[in-house]
Amino acid sequence: MPGLAELTGSLAALLTTLSFLPQVAKTWRTRSAGDFSWVWIVAFGAGLALWLVYGIAIGSLPLVGANGVTLSLVVAIAFVKWREGGPA
Amino acid sequence: MPGLAELTGSLAALLTTLSFLPQVAKTWRTRSAGDFSWVWIVAFGAGLALWLVYGIAIGSLPLVGANGVTLSLVVAIAFVKWREGGPA
Repeated sequence: MPGLAELTGSLAALLTTLSFLPQVAKTWRTRSAGDFSWVWIVAFGAGLALWLVYGIAIGSLPLVGANGVTLSLVVAIAFVKWREGGPA
Repeated sequence: MPGLAELTGSLAALLTTLSFLPQVAKTWRTRSAGDFSWVWIVAFGAGLALWLVYGIAIGSLPLVGANGVTLSLVVAIAFVKWREGGPA
């Protein structure tokens, strides 16, 4: 059942991506990302980028969509933190 | 190249799962999960469960491994929060 599988994957993508949104909205609103560690940003961002590559390799649209969007959100957090400067 | 794809997926699984560990370790150590919202726990947990089902459906070992482990970590956070009681 590839139709049902893709539907499940799309719903999964929607839920995990949406559950990350309030955090990113808060970071963007406050322009403050000091409570994120660079280690987390780099490890999580690299993980998402690899999921994206994996999704392309196996031809999974839900994986590509979810990780493409979430990666861009992590990049936005990294941008806010980079603008702040300060200690890691 | 299914070998390279699985390797990429496994590395992705390792990174995103590892980047969640310090948070869970902190929650478990402090026995405090008051700063998590139930909305996030339920939405993220449901998303992970659906990724797990999707991974089984398309036969992706990295997806099954990563989401199985991360889901159990979110359940641990939910358990700590449930024991605390108190407001959502």
